[in-house]
Order: sequence, then C-alpha cells, then structure tokens
Amino acid sequence: MHPELLSELEALLGDRVTTSQAVRSHHGKDDSHHDPVPPDAVAFPLNTDEVAAVVRACARWRTPMIPFGAGTSIEGHVLAVRGGVTLDLSRMNRIVGVHIDDMDVTVEAGVTRMQLERHLKNSGLFFPVDPGADATLGGMAATGASGTTTVRYGTMRENVLSLRVVLADGRVVRTGGRARKTSAGYDLTQLLVGSEGTLGIITELTLRLHPVPEATLAAVCPFPTIDAAVRTVIGSIQAGVPVARAELLDTAAIDAVNTYSGLECMVAPTVFFEFHGSAAELVEHVASVREIASDLGVLAFNEATTLEARNRLWKARHDAYPALVALRPGCRGLTTDVCVPISRLAECIDQTLAEVRNASVPVGLVGHVGDGNFHLAFMIDPERPEELAEVEALNERLVRRAIAMEGTCTGEHGVGIGKMGFLELEHGEAVDVMRAVKRALDPENIMNPGKVVVL
Amino acid sequence: MHPELLSELEALLGDRVTTSQAVRSHHGKDDSHHDPVPPDAVAFPLNTDEVAAVVRACARWRTPMIPFGAGTSIEGHVLAVRGGVTLDLSRMNRIVGVHIDDMDVTVEAGVTRMQLERHLKNSGLFFPVDPGADATLGGMAATGASGTTTVRYGTMRENVLSLRVVLADGRVVRTGGRARKTSAGYDLTQLLVGSEGTLGIITELTLRLHPVPEATLAAVCPFPTIDAAVRTVIGSIQAGVPVARAELLDTAAIDAVNTYSGLECMVAPTVFFEFHGSAAELVEHVASVREIASDLGVLAFNEATTLEARNRLWKARHDAYPALVALRPGCRGLTTDVCVPISRLAECIDQTLAEVRNASVPVGLVGHVGDGNFHLAFMIDPERPEELAEVEALNERLVRRAIAMEGTCTGEHGVGIGKMGFLELEHGEAVDVMRAVKRALDPENIMNPGKVVVL
Repeated sequence: MHPELLSELEALLGDRVTTSQAVRSHHGKDDSHHDPVPPDAVAFPLNTDEVAAVVRACARWRTPMIPFGAGTSIEGHVLAVRGGVTLDLSRMNRIVGVHIDDMDVTVEAGVTRMQLERHLKNSGLFFPVDPGADATLGGMAATGASGTTTVRYGTMRENVLSLRVVLADGRVVRTGGRARKTSAGYDLTQLLVGSEGTLGIITELTLRLHPVPEATLAAVCPFPTIDAAVRTVIGSIQAGVPVARAELLDTAAIDAVNTYSGLECMVAPTVFFEFHGSAAELVEHVASVREIASDLGVLAFNEATTLEARNRLWKARHDAYPALVALRPGCRGLTTDVCVPISRLAECIDQTLAEVRNASVPVGLVGHVGDGNFHLAFMIDPERPEELAEVEALNERLVRRAIAMEGTCTGEHGVGIGKMGFLELEHGEAVDVMRAVKRALDPENIMNPGKVVVL
Repeated sequence: MHPELLSELEALLGDRVTTSQAVRSHHGKDDSHHDPVPPDAVAFPLNTDEVAAVVRACARWRTPMIPFGAGTSIEGHVLAVRGGVTLDLSRMNRIVGVHIDDMDVTVEAGVTRMQLERHLKNSGLFFPVDPGADATLGGMAATGASGTTTVRYGTMRENVLSLRVVLADGRVVRTGGRARKTSAGYDLTQLLVGSEGTLGIITELTLRLHPVPEATLAAVCPFPTIDAAVRTVIGSIQAGVPVARAELLDTAAIDAVNTYSGLECMVAPTVFFEFHGSAAELVEHVASVREIASDLGVLAFNEATTLEARNRLWKARHDAYPALVALRPGCRGLTTDVCVPISRLAECIDQTLAEVRNASVPVGLVGHVGDGNFHLAFMIDPERPEELAEVEALNERLVRRAIAMEGTCTGEHGVGIGKMGFLELEHGEAVDVMRAVKRALDPENIMNPGKVVVL
C-alpha cells in the first residue's frame, strides 16, 4: 500500500490503524487450511462513518479492502490475496435496538452470535442461525451462514431483514426497512448476503427473531447405517414434523467427540435431534420420529431433556471439528461442504465415504441432514504436501458428484478462494452475470478482490 | 416496432406472433386502475429456446420486451409504456417434474397456481404461496408475490429454489440447482425474484413444496376494534402459535363479502384465521388464540372445520376486492398496499382509516396482519378525474406514513409504474445501486423498460 494512504488512515483513526506484524498475521488467516496472506495494514473503525472514510481513502488509492469479523470463515474469505487494508469490525459491537413487539433486532456488524444470545436472554426471543463458531453477525450475513437449525428456521438469508452497507466508493446505503416483507425494488439485501465482502462492507444488520419455544428436547439416535439415519430424518420432515435440528455424525466423528467431549455415545452413524414446541407437541413429534426411526432399525433413542444435557450435546457437536483434528496430533484440518437434493443425500454420502475411507489421511463426516448438506473434515500432516494434493483431489471429486446430483459446491461454507474453481461448473454462464454485478458495484475491483468471482 | 423485426418474429413463430388489436389490447392491461398501454405485438413462445430467439431478435432492434403471465398484477407491471413486444408465456404451462422425496417441483413459467394445486392433489405436498388471483408462477416469481399464507410459509422469495432466465442479450442461464440451500456465489435467484421482468425473463422455476398438514381449521373472529384484532394476531405469533393465515377485513370489507359471497358474518373488524398441524396441535393452537382473543374482547370465535366451509371462507376473502368494487356499480377499483413493522400496524391502520373515511369515495381494507401488510381498495368513478386525484393523494399520504414507520411502499403488489415515485423516498441512494444493477444486466434498457427504476 502507498505510504500516503497509511498516513491518511492514521489521520482518520490514530492508533486504530496498524501495520504491526502480529496484528497483520492474525488478520491474514481464518479457520481454514488455506495458507495465510496478511494484509498491509489493519484498521479498527468504530462506526459506519469511519468505515466509509476508510473506504473512500482506500478507493482513492485503488487499494483492496477486506472486511474481517471473528476470522472464523473456512474458505479463505479474509486472506489478503491482493494485499490492502483489512477492516476489523469487531469493535463495532453495539446492539442498536431490540424490538420485542416486532420480533427483530438491529446490531452493528461486529456483534457476535453469542453476544446477541446473552443480550436476548429473558426476552422470550432468540436468534436461531447457528453455524457453530462464535462468528460476528456481519460476517454471518456476508457469508450467508447457516448451520444446525436451518432445517427449521432458515439460513441468514431468511433471517436478515435489512443491511447498512458501505459501497466501494464510500457511499452508505440501507437495503431495506423493518417491514417483514417488501416488494419495493430489487432485493439488495439478498444480493449482499453471501457476497463475502466483494460488493460492499456490511456495517449494521436488522435480524428477525423468533419466540423461544415453550419446550425443547434433544435425542441421540444411533443407526445401523448412514442410509437409515438419513431416511429417518427425511421421512420425519416429509411427515410434517418441524424438526429443529437433525445432525448426522459418522462413526469417525462419534468416536472423536466421545474422546474429545467425554460423551459415551454408541459408535455408529448417529443423529442428534432437537425438537421445539409446546410440551404436548414434543410428545407428538418424538413419537412420530421414534416410529420412523424404529422402522429403519434405530439402535437406541436416548432423550436429553435437561438443559445441561442438551448443552453438553450441542457443545460436543460443535466441537466435532476440533475433536477430529485432535485425533492426529500436529495435523491441520481441511474441511469442505456440499449440499444436494435430500433424496440424493444418502447416496452422495455413501459414494463419498466409500472413496475417502481409502484415503491415506483420517476423515470424519458431519451433516445437516434436513438440508441435504454435509461436511468432511480431513486431517492432514502439514509436512506432507502429497496429503494435501490427495485431499484436494478427493474434494474435487466430491464437488463434481454433488453438482452432478443437481446440488451445489458449497451449502454454507461459501466460495472464498477455496470453491472459486467450481463456480463455472455449477453455474455455467450465470457466473458472467455475477461478474457483471461485481463490475457494476465495484468497478475498480477493490472490495475483497480475488474472491467469489475474478474480473 | 420495426416491420423487419415483425417479419423476423413471424419467421420464428409463425402465427404465434400477432399485431391484432384485440390481442394487443388484452395484453396492454392488468388488474389495476392504470390506463392500458398495448404493446406493438404479442408473441406466444412455447419454450425457453423460442423466448431466447425472440429476445435476441428484439435486442437486435433495441425493442422493448414485456413478459406476460396471467395479467393479474396490480401496479401496471405489464403495460407497454415504451411500446415493444409482449411475450405471453401462458402456453409454457408444462409441469416439468415433481420430486416428492425432495419436496420440490420444476414448472414452466406459464403454469398457474391453481394448475399446480390440481397437479399436486394426492401427492401429500402443496405449494403454499397464495396471492388470491390464479396468477402464473413465473409472474408470481417476477413480482415477488406473497399473500394469505406468508405468515407461516413465506413469500415467493422463500419458496423459489432456482430459475431459468433469458437475459437481455438472449443468453439462457440457470440461477441455481435443487439443493435446499447454497452459498455458491451471488444469489441471482433472489435478484431476479421481484425484478418484474426488468432484468430478464423467467421461463422455468423450481419451487419448494410443503407437506399437506394432517389437519386444518379456520375460524372467523369479529372484534370490537381493529386494534384488538391486530393485537390478537400479533400476540398469537409472539406466543409461538404457527398461525397459517390471519386475514383482517374491516367493516366495509365484511359488509361487501357478506353481500357478494353470501356470508353472514357480524359486521365488525374481523380476522379469518387458519391453523395447520396435527389434530392435537390444532386444539392447542386454537385454545391459545381463543384465550388471547378473549382477553381482547373478541365478539365471537366461529370455527369452520369442514373443507366446504373453509373453501367458502377463503373464496370470499379472495373475492373481497370484486366484492368492494361491486358496491358501486360502474366504478373502477384502485388498490394499494403497504407493509410496516407489526408493532406499528394497528396505529398505521387507525390513522389511515381515520383519513380515508372522510374521502368522497367508498373504501375497504383487508390485511395480512401477521406480516404487517394491508391493502386499501378505493372505488372510483372513472368519469370523475377528481376522485382519482383525491385517492392518489390519499395513497401518497399512506405510503409516506408507512415509510416513516420504517415500513415499505409495497409489501406485495410490487413497484410496476404505480410505486416508482416512492422508491427514492424509501431507499435513498440504494436506488442508485438498483440502477447500476439494471444497467449491468440490461445496458440497452429493453427489458420491461420504464418499470421499477428509470435509467
């Protein structure tokens, strides 16, 4: 970056802009296996006006800008692949307003999921989107995050009402109001959700909230086969049971969480269910799912009724990735995800596991079954580049398989730099439309350049 | 249009292109009060390739193109305000494939809502979006339609998985696959939904389907005030009751449907409820809503349990607009809609009714209460231009009130030509972003030009 730009940023932000090696290093990496690429400087704006001022300065010097939240993305979204300035929005962590009667909340982009959860405690409302990591809500919107509760409550797409966004030239726009629906023009909210910082920087969000269910119940269900597990979930959904969570763990993942989180689950393909509703509804829902599971040979149906038991279960589920990484000391995890129509899920998983079981590295599978979405986590020795090459080849075969089944190269991890090579395969000429949109909103190609689509 | 373009279209489509006065007149109007503007010609393509060929021909002659489904839009969306060729897609009415296990269906754009409903009979699945009119699904996607069931099942936005679209230069793209979620690049599906034919022509759609509920129950609830009616609905939703429909009719609307549809409802602000679930769930839901309604002084709680009674009720609700128009023989209806945060709905309705009750023309109100969305229908004498002027002034005040309450100038009718004047007020500089997107996808401004945003 130009030294004069740095001076301008220092004039704007004082010591809230830095070129320190340690800070730059921290901001050049995420939770993925991709090699870190630090930015030239890191800025810590405190509000939308400061973000806009930084953007205007960077735009004058045609310098790339990368928005950064919690750094928990897993496809290299925040790597400074073309240098430039990272805008760390984590200090923009104000909850602007909770509107109980409207069941919505406005937050700054740096507010994290768990911070919001704590804030909403005792309000009777909650924000459902749960990707596992304690990501910032701005980052979750930018990457179109989803997670364990999507089958019931949707992804970020269905739960963002509007955004405040700083555009590539520093203009600040709001993409909508607080009405629960609108037909007033192009849906810029949805265009920005999932755009990974390449079209603008999200600084504020209004999110839908949902009533806390009267009762909650979880159940751990080991199955003889993955097929039986998947068919139980899909059958339950088709029967109209509003399953709140249905998380599949394969035997490797179950084994890992048993060790890592001290669970004592049977080592078999397992679904962690959660049900939300009135007490009477839960009885009905559990009975329906039990019957379907039983017909498919479920090995056990262990209910977790207390809050402690449920929290332990979901903490263990969210820790499946570190649990798998811990299986091979010194290894580095490489995680990928695809999503297919639910009728193809069991087949897609079976073919994939048949293939990866012959791999030379350990691998575990977890999946959001109700959405047709699953993840593989490979444990690679960073000293052995041939392992990375092997896993990348397996990943490519997985993605091609998913796309051939009318699925997608990523259900929730996003494109970042890791899935860019598959966009043409999946979307064909529609990628040109994405490029046209990118060019229209970021003609200088300075908003997180080198991600999603290349101009 | 250039006579050579007509020759080219005739060479492509034979007698499926026409300049007949009657056909042009039919395609120059919709269900709105806007003065008809016929196109220069009407084409009836039979498949996506033919649509693409027509688009390429029109693009060569820089001639506007207007997609047309059932002509049921209500803000002038299909009026040929800049001349050109209307593409009537109603003959593209093939149901391409129902995927029961995936709970989705692929249809051509000209398939209507009721055609799909008939096709899905006995499948155990249904498509929930219900704007009232028997619109085409392509048109419903293009206008981002919603309706009575949105409070439970969402709008078209939440129910379209992917689109096949012909772009302004005749290229054909698909915006997604059949996976239930994806993070693979910009969400072109959502960009096209609600773009009203101004960014491309939708020729095929894949839609989410939902399990037919085990049981359904409707209830007619007259209230002493609109405020009590609105607060009952909102209280029920906040209590976690998954209300499937909650339609408000004011006294004028109730009076009109009593006469028009032979109902015998008490003449009071009334909510038509519908509940979907298991038999046991319905008992719980109705009990919860009854209690809330009772606390707010509900005057009756008349359950409609039989299919016949429910069908009669919802037919009457959907006929509220013709019922109101029938109140004043020879009149023309002008209908408008806004949507506000639900906490402001009662206040917005009260202020609006206080104002319009003094109007010199009859008016009725119906609303999708759970979404914060309501409609006014004014009955105007077409011979008295001062009535139109009066109603347009009232409409403007209504829209300004809704926007001041953080709402939107249209919850579901769309922009068309009727709401264009309010987009800047609602979105500010974000309208420039919409223009940039329009310019990027339709640089010659030939896709339904003069609608949504003006270049």
